[in-house]
Amino acid sequence: MTTEQQFIIKAEALRDFCAQVLEKANVPSEDAKVTAGLMVETELRGVDTHGVARLAGATRSLEEGKFNPRPNLRILKEGPVHVLFDADLALGYVASAKAMQWCIERAKETGFAMAGVRNSTHFGAAASYAMMAAQENFIGFAATNGPPHLAPPGGYVATHGNNPSAYAIPAGAEPMLVLDIATSVKAFNLVNKYAREGRSIPLGWALDEEGNPTTDPNHAFSLMPFGENGFKGFGMTLIMDVLAGVMTGSRFGPRFTQGIGVRQVGHFFYALDPELFMPLAEFKANVDETLRAAKDAPRKEGVTRLFVAGEPEHDQFQRRSKEGIPLSPWIREQLETVGREFGVPFER
Amino acid sequence: MTTEQQFIIKAEALRDFCAQVLEKANVPSEDAKVTAGLMVETELRGVDTHGVARLAGATRSLEEGKFNPRPNLRILKEGPVHVLFDADLALGYVASAKAMQWCIERAKETGFAMAGVRNSTHFGAAASYAMMAAQENFIGFAATNGPPHLAPPGGYVATHGNNPSAYAIPAGAEPMLVLDIATSVKAFNLVNKYAREGRSIPLGWALDEEGNPTTDPNHAFSLMPFGENGFKGFGMTLIMDVLAGVMTGSRFGPRFTQGIGVRQVGHFFYALDPELFMPLAEFKANVDETLRAAKDAPRKEGVTRLFVAGEPEHDQFQRRSKEGIPLSPWIREQLETVGREFGVPFER
Repeated sequence: MTTEQQFIIKAEALRDFCAQVLEKANVPSEDAKVTAGLMVETELRGVDTHGVARLAGATRSLEEGKFNPRPNLRILKEGPVHVLFDADLALGYVASAKAMQWCIERAKETGFAMAGVRNSTHFGAAASYAMMAAQENFIGFAATNGPPHLAPPGGYVATHGNNPSAYAIPAGAEPMLVLDIATSVKAFNLVNKYAREGRSIPLGWALDEEGNPTTDPNHAFSLMPFGENGFKGFGMTLIMDVLAGVMTGSRFGPRFTQGIGVRQVGHFFYALDPELFMPLAEFKANVDETLRAAKDAPRKEGVTRLFVAGEPEHDQFQRRSKEGIPLSPWIREQLETVGREFGVPFER
Repeated sequence: MTTEQQFIIKAEALRDFCAQVLEKANVPSEDAKVTAGLMVETELRGVDTHGVARLAGATRSLEEGKFNPRPNLRILKEGPVHVLFDADLALGYVASAKAMQWCIERAKETGFAMAGVRNSTHFGAAASYAMMAAQENFIGFAATNGPPHLAPPGGYVATHGNNPSAYAIPAGAEPMLVLDIATSVKAFNLVNKYAREGRSIPLGWALDEEGNPTTDPNHAFSLMPFGENGFKGFGMTLIMDVLAGVMTGSRFGPRFTQGIGVRQVGHFFYALDPELFMPLAEFKANVDETLRAAKDAPRKEGVTRLFVAGEPEHDQFQRRSKEGIPLSPWIREQLETVGREFGVPFER
């Protein structure tokens, strides 16, 4: 390593490190592996705001008793095509992987299955769970709600989370189609990243305490919803707040700021078998065809390549799986600190 | 009527007129009523780009044989929670109402049901079908694909429709939550409306033939997808193209521009019973609570009221149901022309 920027770590080593730290934080080995696996998968995809950068926060929440390392994760309701889990403040990764796995197993029999999860915690990237379904040839959907970050159009005080949702659709020769979108113009973690790096944010990402657009990430009082005037983004935030929060019996919008400080977010997942409607091989070939129509379209001057949703992350995944993951100095330092705290040396 | 702008018509009269015209265009009475009902409902909601303005186009397509007035609308596949219809080029309204009705009836037994529709035509507003489900206390979802209007980010030639999708969620004392969004910044019909009215469009709605942003609606060669850089909007367009088009065996993205000129769009619907997860009364009360948190949030200076998705349309619906529907001169003239053609006088 000659400069800070060139710290490269192999996925396997990073995964082991995260899993060992989580075990030291009293998380059972199997759950620690699942969580570490998903954090590193997200890091491999280049989504560094939602990858191993979440380890320090997760261990802190475990220590503070906000997350439960050994939860009584149980089924509250179950039917032919639905299930409702109480996560008992499990790591969101563990509860969500279990819920989507339930959907996948059930959908193998029924063609469709959905899962609600209540009393959960941050699940990382929504794409992770949608992709789990797509890897098994299902169309996957995943959504979560979260505490207020977004102000309604015309307002400036955050009332609802920027509740991300994701679809993943299996393709044939093409990488699967993966769309993972928060309802804010940009993710909260990205605004925080700019704050840490001492950079100003573009106008249009956030409002300050008085409701004015701001370029100072430290004065990002509320995030702005996507779409002209924010109506599309804020509307979608309400939909996801209902699907993931209200419907599952979790906290939702205004309830995040009431009572004790535990977040208790909710999630909603489904897996849908396209083979209910047409043969899988034909489906996948046609997904390829529609993706290629976009990828092969004429490009604006100076544009060298067109990407469809999930493709930049797929490319990054391939590259980083082979060459290793370049960690930013900030994340490396954070991991070193966490490693020291839990007695797990952080090495390449 | 003293000026062009003040032409007001009662919903009932407008519905009768549309239904009679459709019957004269060889549509069976029941189907004509369904279609006229949905067109006028959309007009009542103030969505004048997708209401009775579609009557002239529909009758023209019926006459040209692009739409089938007496289709063999049939079920191709059916299972416990899914159905696939072949619309046989029915009016999209008729096929879609039937498909969502199937979902609702089935979901009353199973808690969830979904419908694909292939070989359909323009179905008006996606919200109509989602709301049908919400009126019966289900969460409703509706999506369609359509011919290319949207260029991928970095491109300028339209490759995919701006494929709208809608959610509707039942509330308690509040109006239901309805989100109906196309994946372009603005709807194609709205750009056309500006063109008709000789108005220029704001920069950011469309690209011209050379891929430059344009303010001339007559040179709107492709629409721009919503969200920063268009990645969110275009990603969602691909998802809806797959759900509504690829999966149902309809035309999709590149296939719209191949072969004969008939559009054969596809649709996808589902109805989901929130009572699978929690008691309906509690669900509705909590939906109210989360909606009110947004509506009652502090407002920016000069803002008199905050609206949540579907609320402006709900207010418009209430007002127009009572006071009648003010038709723009352009729509009135169009209806008069259609009325003359089919021998149905257009009167208030």
